[in-house]
Amino acid sequence: MAAGGGGGESNSQMKVVKGDFGYVLEDVPHLVDYIPDLPTYPNPLRSNPAYSVVKQYFVDKDDTVPQKVVVHIGSPRGVHFRRAGPCQKVYFKSDDVHACIVTCGGLCPGLNTVIREIVHSLDYMYGVRRILGIEGGYRGFYAKNTINLTPKLVDDIHKRGGTILGTSRGGHDTAKIVDSVQDRGINQVYIIGGDGTQKGAAAIYEEVRRRGLKVSVAGIPKTIDNDIPVIDKSFGFDTAVEEAQRAINAAHVEAESAENGIGLVKLMGRYSGFIAMYATLASRDVDCCLIPESPFFLEGQGGLLEFVEKRLKDSGHIVIVIAEGAGQELLAAENSSAKATESDASGNRLLKDVGLWLSQKIKDYSKLRNFPINLKYIDPTYMIRAIPSNASDNVYSTLLAQSTVHGAMAGFTGFTCGLVNGRHTYIPFNRIIERQNKVVITDRMWARLLSSTNQPSFLCPIEVEKVKNEEKLKAQLLDGGNAR
Amino acid sequence: MAAGGGGGESNSQMKVVKGDFGYVLEDVPHLVDYIPDLPTYPNPLRSNPAYSVVKQYFVDKDDTVPQKVVVHIGSPRGVHFRRAGPCQKVYFKSDDVHACIVTCGGLCPGLNTVIREIVHSLDYMYGVRRILGIEGGYRGFYAKNTINLTPKLVDDIHKRGGTILGTSRGGHDTAKIVDSVQDRGINQVYIIGGDGTQKGAAAIYEEVRRRGLKVSVAGIPKTIDNDIPVIDKSFGFDTAVEEAQRAINAAHVEAESAENGIGLVKLMGRYSGFIAMYATLASRDVDCCLIPESPFFLEGQGGLLEFVEKRLKDSGHIVIVIAEGAGQELLAAENSSAKATESDASGNRLLKDVGLWLSQKIKDYSKLRNFPINLKYIDPTYMIRAIPSNASDNVYSTLLAQSTVHGAMAGFTGFTCGLVNGRHTYIPFNRIIERQNKVVITDRMWARLLSSTNQPSFLCPIEVEKVKNEEKLKAQLLDGGNAR
Amino acid sequence: MAAGGGGGESNSQMKVVKGDFGYVLEDVPHLVDYIPDLPTYPNPLRSNPAYSVVKQYFVDKDDTVPQKVVVHIGSPRGVHFRRAGPCQKVYFKSDDVHACIVTCGGLCPGLNTVIREIVHSLDYMYGVRRILGIEGGYRGFYAKNTINLTPKLVDDIHKRGGTILGTSRGGHDTAKIVDSVQDRGINQVYIIGGDGTQKGAAAIYEEVRRRGLKVSVAGIPKTIDNDIPVIDKSFGFDTAVEEAQRAINAAHVEAESAENGIGLVKLMGRYSGFIAMYATLASRDVDCCLIPESPFFLEGQGGLLEFVEKRLKDSGHIVIVIAEGAGQELLAAENSSAKATESDASGNRLLKDVGLWLSQKIKDYSKLRNFPINLKYIDPTYMIRAIPSNASDNVYSTLLAQSTVHGAMAGFTGFTCGLVNGRHTYIPFNRIIERQNKVVITDRMWARLLSSTNQPSFLCPIEVEKVKNEEKLKAQLLDGGNAR
Amino acid sequence: MAAGGGGGESNSQMKVVKGDFGYVLEDVPHLVDYIPDLPTYPNPLRSNPAYSVVKQYFVDKDDTVPQKVVVHIGSPRGVHFRRAGPCQKVYFKSDDVHACIVTCGGLCPGLNTVIREIVHSLDYMYGVRRILGIEGGYRGFYAKNTINLTPKLVDDIHKRGGTILGTSRGGHDTAKIVDSVQDRGINQVYIIGGDGTQKGAAAIYEEVRRRGLKVSVAGIPKTIDNDIPVIDKSFGFDTAVEEAQRAINAAHVEAESAENGIGLVKLMGRYSGFIAMYATLASRDVDCCLIPESPFFLEGQGGLLEFVEKRLKDSGHIVIVIAEGAGQELLAAENSSAKATESDASGNRLLKDVGLWLSQKIKDYSKLRNFPINLKYIDPTYMIRAIPSNASDNVYSTLLAQSTVHGAMAGFTGFTCGLVNGRHTYIPFNRIIERQNKVVITDRMWARLLSSTNQPSFLCPIEVEKVKNEEKLKAQLLDGGNAR
Repeated sequence: MAAGGGGGESNSQMKVVKGDFGYVLEDVPHLVDYIPDLPTYPNPLRSNPAYSVVKQYFVDKDDTVPQKVVVHIGSPRGVHFRRAGPCQKVYFKSDDVHACIVTCGGLCPGLNTVIREIVHSLDYMYGVRRILGIEGGYRGFYAKNTINLTPKLVDDIHKRGGTILGTSRGGHDTAKIVDSVQDRGINQVYIIGGDGTQKGAAAIYEEVRRRGLKVSVAGIPKTIDNDIPVIDKSFGFDTAVEEAQRAINAAHVEAESAENGIGLVKLMGRYSGFIAMYATLASRDVDCCLIPESPFFLEGQGGLLEFVEKRLKDSGHIVIVIAEGAGQELLAAENSSAKATESDASGNRLLKDVGLWLSQKIKDYSKLRNFPINLKYIDPTYMIRAIPSNASDNVYSTLLAQSTVHGAMAGFTGFTCGLVNGRHTYIPFNRIIERQNKVVITDRMWARLLSSTNQPSFLCPIEVEKVKNEEKLKAQLLDGGNAR
Repeated sequence: MAAGGGGGESNSQMKVVKGDFGYVLEDVPHLVDYIPDLPTYPNPLRSNPAYSVVKQYFVDKDDTVPQKVVVHIGSPRGVHFRRAGPCQKVYFKSDDVHACIVTCGGLCPGLNTVIREIVHSLDYMYGVRRILGIEGGYRGFYAKNTINLTPKLVDDIHKRGGTILGTSRGGHDTAKIVDSVQDRGINQVYIIGGDGTQKGAAAIYEEVRRRGLKVSVAGIPKTIDNDIPVIDKSFGFDTAVEEAQRAINAAHVEAESAENGIGLVKLMGRYSGFIAMYATLASRDVDCCLIPESPFFLEGQGGLLEFVEKRLKDSGHIVIVIAEGAGQELLAAENSSAKATESDASGNRLLKDVGLWLSQKIKDYSKLRNFPINLKYIDPTYMIRAIPSNASDNVYSTLLAQSTVHGAMAGFTGFTCGLVNGRHTYIPFNRIIERQNKVVITDRMWARLLSSTNQPSFLCPIEVEKVKNEEKLKAQLLDGGNAR
Repeated sequence: MAAGGGGGESNSQMKVVKGDFGYVLEDVPHLVDYIPDLPTYPNPLRSNPAYSVVKQYFVDKDDTVPQKVVVHIGSPRGVHFRRAGPCQKVYFKSDDVHACIVTCGGLCPGLNTVIREIVHSLDYMYGVRRILGIEGGYRGFYAKNTINLTPKLVDDIHKRGGTILGTSRGGHDTAKIVDSVQDRGINQVYIIGGDGTQKGAAAIYEEVRRRGLKVSVAGIPKTIDNDIPVIDKSFGFDTAVEEAQRAINAAHVEAESAENGIGLVKLMGRYSGFIAMYATLASRDVDCCLIPESPFFLEGQGGLLEFVEKRLKDSGHIVIVIAEGAGQELLAAENSSAKATESDASGNRLLKDVGLWLSQKIKDYSKLRNFPINLKYIDPTYMIRAIPSNASDNVYSTLLAQSTVHGAMAGFTGFTCGLVNGRHTYIPFNRIIERQNKVVITDRMWARLLSSTNQPSFLCPIEVEKVKNEEKLKAQLLDGGNAR
Repeated sequence: MAAGGGGGESNSQMKVVKGDFGYVLEDVPHLVDYIPDLPTYPNPLRSNPAYSVVKQYFVDKDDTVPQKVVVHIGSPRGVHFRRAGPCQKVYFKSDDVHACIVTCGGLCPGLNTVIREIVHSLDYMYGVRRILGIEGGYRGFYAKNTINLTPKLVDDIHKRGGTILGTSRGGHDTAKIVDSVQDRGINQVYIIGGDGTQKGAAAIYEEVRRRGLKVSVAGIPKTIDNDIPVIDKSFGFDTAVEEAQRAINAAHVEAESAENGIGLVKLMGRYSGFIAMYATLASRDVDCCLIPESPFFLEGQGGLLEFVEKRLKDSGHIVIVIAEGAGQELLAAENSSAKATESDASGNRLLKDVGLWLSQKIKDYSKLRNFPINLKYIDPTYMIRAIPSNASDNVYSTLLAQSTVHGAMAGFTGFTCGLVNGRHTYIPFNRIIERQNKVVITDRMWARLLSSTNQPSFLCPIEVEKVKNEEKLKAQLLDGGNAR
């Protein structure tokens, strides 16, 4: 399976295959990489009546998808990933499979759809009957009960928000988890979670490989913030942007109905402002959008407070959307004497509530400048996270789960499944966890936003230069994920 | 502007550029192709503060996007399209631009968002002040009043369904339309509509070129059925799939609450079953999905009626989704004596209501077989078409409109703007109108659906062979749009 | 319990008590009316901690509610009903109760909430453990399995549409049903359904009484049409009016976007136009509302077709809402040769689809008059019936179920529970089934509608006189239910 | 017009008329009370075709509605209010009317519907053309511009949240406002607002009367909290309860998905817990509902914290709904050293955020007791206030506005219009502003809630006695508004 050749820098996390004209395949590991002579079996789908007419159903083992799709006539072909899908041969007998599923980190619309479809795919497509649900996140492997997942049990769960398995942050203990996997005789591990969780999945895969176990470890990236690199977007993101419209509409109505009305909405986005940016573009009622990637300052000429005052004078009201991670450096500067940045159990730095902070700053400024304001602050975070996924995310989550199951059955391991340029692919863990996806503020999408809100950049000239240089470097390496 | 060279088979609709290793660019026409020595001007965006920090804002004139993204290590590079976006130079002075916008055909969520954003982009980005709305479709060019579109007028229209310009079918009279364009001094024509409308746009472009006018003709594909080829999906499609969930849910509740309950939902899809397919995948409550691309038969072994009876006996109820164009050959056969297929003013064949027809067939069968049923038929078509677009379609429509305006300002003409593998591109008209996008029933997406509903294929063996052969041919030519 | 005295015309269905100044109590039957010397028990709620502080919790046995609340200084006091609520004494020991619940007729939002709350009330308030669900309507008593209803089983069902018990029309066989009740040892029968169903409940009560059984028979009126007399409104009505807005909005958008656009929406209302009337008042987008109570004619001066043409000429579009039972006399006249009016299993006359009929009439007229129209016909009936109830109906259904359980536990029988002037009351069956609640078209509410749509009355002078005389008579007898 | 006589204790705010058997009419003032010999005119509605068939259209001048509808056979008839509706005679000529509308206080769904319908009623029913919108609340009378309100301008505003007139708190200056009214020649003043606003309206009426002006002053009660006495419910309340379901659902999902998950939702309700109570009853997912009327304590046996811990141990999660005014005495006690209670410009005491406070208390307790919790706090206040009204509130607001206009045209003044036992009535200001409507915690509705959540009463025995005694007194005076 999987091509060899080339002069790649392969390691345990990634197998690099090179071709002509700059073609590079960054392939995912496979069980045969460290367990030779594994037997194969014909894919049970071959006898499924639903597929009898489908000539193109199985993916070709050579199918790959380029990471970069804006190309020039003479440009090298660049990095590719393996296309996801059912293979002609599988490395597990149906009766031998013992799978488990775990969800980690915060809630995200679509979690239950993914759980449901892993179970359905394993059962209906591959005849797998033993599927364990690990309850309460990573620590559930060694500290909690498990539940048997059957198609009947999960049949309607995609219509509910949250995760029926429960979730938690942290609790990752590689040795204890792999012990538990080994003790229970589990040979397929499906791990749904954000970048911290995927790092944990990578560690589990490495330990499984070290112990020489025939266990496929597959990750499904979950991040409502859309901050996972390489992939087009994460499941639940569309739903979140949709639901955020309610909060923005409310802020707009409140702002318009009051004299000098200010509607301030805090949205998710610890390190990246995608939800804030897309929610702003979808709504068109926002006057100012603040994200972690674009620094701003409050006071003085060109500062945020001056802009707020000006917009109030011009149009009588203003709607501001702020991502939770925006302006954290300003809060930190104010609290430098306080204990250094704390982290939660997932390792995410614990953020001060920038919405409350900014509300106070604006109120202080309004007193100082002696113009009365009416500020309404809305934090819809939990109302967004907890809803069921919309139709678009339901389809996406469903296909993502199917692709992941196909990969594990085909013997791939140590991989994340994700959408790259509209195609489902298998991506090596290290490409997912090496950095975070961020809004590229020198890119066109952000320019579109600036032009739509008509807000200034809030950057001082020195920062402009700095940002430009950084981005130039990045741009040479990567095709920015949001540069559509 | 735009590359030349190569041994392409260029014509007035498409300029073909060839490169190494099978690279092909199918480029769109440009005003300079038939009007030499046109002056250029710096893009006004260059002095817009919002873009001051955005190094990568302007597209490189060599940026292209491949149509095919599932590739092999040695496969040729294939067809590419020009990437959409703002260019460094434009071919119109802001004060000279006189644009018009027309919407044709049936309603689709997002029409108002597109109108709104063309106006906003022209005004805020390019300083264009003269924008005419043509009322009531193509015939509005010569038979109706026009309205002046200003940013203020269109500011909130994206929150409403329908089109503020009104729409109609047919009424295309190339000469009269171009006369009207010429008389009014219009030099940018934005045409929003389905494949019939885009054919009309191509004819207008050809006539404009024949007369040697400096007029950019730009098409924006609109089809709630998603049946336009090449592009990833059409705007409004997501919203339609989302809204269809309501009808399917209702059908499911009705079916479950009655003895031998049958919930039958007719969805849009004259020639292609995308909405039916995606709505079924999103819902998971559907037992049977029927689309135009997959023939079925009613009676006898393996027929639909037998399946319905069986499913009722097994689970007590059944939910069926049928696309409006499905089974039309069966209706036609029954009405062969009647006058041959009629067409509406857009040239679409007028369909008998397959939902009412199928309801009757099932009821007849139930009487014949003497088992009582409770059939509820739901046709949510107009309730779906008329809603405002959701957040995802709002963002998509917004960016689509911006891309189209950039193209016209840059002097391109005779093009359609569309999303190809996640990137906005300019596509020659002939690629859009030469065929219709259809669900490829030998492809994986349809297999996924069959596996999710657990319905049989309803194909008789001969048809299976026929379909396979047809598809093999197609597959060699094209990478099916829905083969994700 | 229950007052005696007075010179009333009591019978087995109603006990009439008279007081001074025209006070009349139309009281419901009680088990002691035909089974003397029944023992009583203290209400278990008296020891429930939740009620320990609630002095006013139990209803006074003399509490009554007037039917008429628009009174003059000297007017007689009129008819009253017994106020619903928990009584100090009950006539059943918790362990002895064996209850059953059945749902009959068409779907209506809130059915599951009522089922859920009967179970919860019996279990949590009264310690009843044996509750049977009769499946599939009346015929379920003798032809189907039953299910044991527990609080856990019904805990979340109010979030789903439909009825978990299933439903059907007809199937009423008094003797077989009472046999089944007797055989199973059931002593509380909760019957949820429309006026046909309540007639059946009255027959069951009479038979139970004839046999001298200690069985409480309680009805809960269910009618999405709001056509049950005496009560303020039926559960699910608010939800239906809310959901109807979607269809009207869609019709409005379609009509506005087309030239001479006509949006036609058919709503529920077999004999009464309440949903059509309230949906029209709530929306304000409707130009014409047609209901069964208000006859109209199509052709000639002052007819509907003339009005449609005029409104199209004036404003370019028209939105029409028609109740399913409107204009049936016109359809009947056209089909007089056809077999006389058929009925469904509930005894409701089977209506021709007036929406399709009216669509055709308008289309014919447009051809005749040679002005082109664009008519879109929307029938949202099943999409409205099948949704879960909204918050307001959830509260209403919950309290209705509680009141009914209190009544049965207190030994009342042969009663319907309903809201009268904002208070829950027990109403004798004969008051509920003797006539249907209808929109009084000489009343203010209908005048409000006419004034809001600005439509003519479509009545010819003779009809005006006829209607006036009829209504004068009615007005003397009754305080019209909708005369708010 | 308007009754006199009787031995009432009439004053400038209320005319008391007494009849036999305890009948009391508390009638509203009329212009003729202080301006004799005012001419009357036939109501223009008499020639409106819409009303030509409506015999009962005009209210009888003797129509009244009892406040109390739970009555005994021998109980006195009690207090009545004048029924609202169009009168045969009016006291204003259409051309002479100059009306104004003002909205004050916080946002509430339905404000725009009321504004819209006042304008439509005045224009379409009474032919009034001069209607001023006062912008930004009471201070708009003397400090802001006004806008001319026309039917066209307000035609679609009921589909938007907020108020197109803008609003503010405070700013009431009786003399300046009446000066402004007099200067502008305004003779009908429509004032929409809460109890503070209605107090202001009463003062304006008194001043107008003192000056002998022919100006009708009419109040429309607006309070999302439903805390206005006498009336059945305030407009917007249904919508608020509906929208609150989203927040409770989200809290439930978050709580269920985490270990020891706590979902805490703060809802509106400064002095009264109606929204919290009804939202809890509608949802059934709430474990504990805390309202201002029912004191609670945190620590020790029977306290809230113990209950939280117990519920977490029993079922793993807990959902708490708290009204914003609940527990304020506990916060006050903690901050006794701080400055005494502050008020906002409406005179409402400024509340500390009890949600944040309770979150902290629970977190502290969890640390102290060393059991980890996951608390998610949701404050949906502004998202609820800002939405458009639902269908039910749209109908209600529409009829309320019509009734108010009828009253002013008929020459009544110094009145509030409200629903009493399902009928529109005119209520003297003093009955509206003398006290606040509150949840009667010794009443059945609260008992229903306690029984549905299964929460303890959190009252210590002494409080129980105190509450009982208070309520006994109240019960003798009034029929509690929520005692259904």
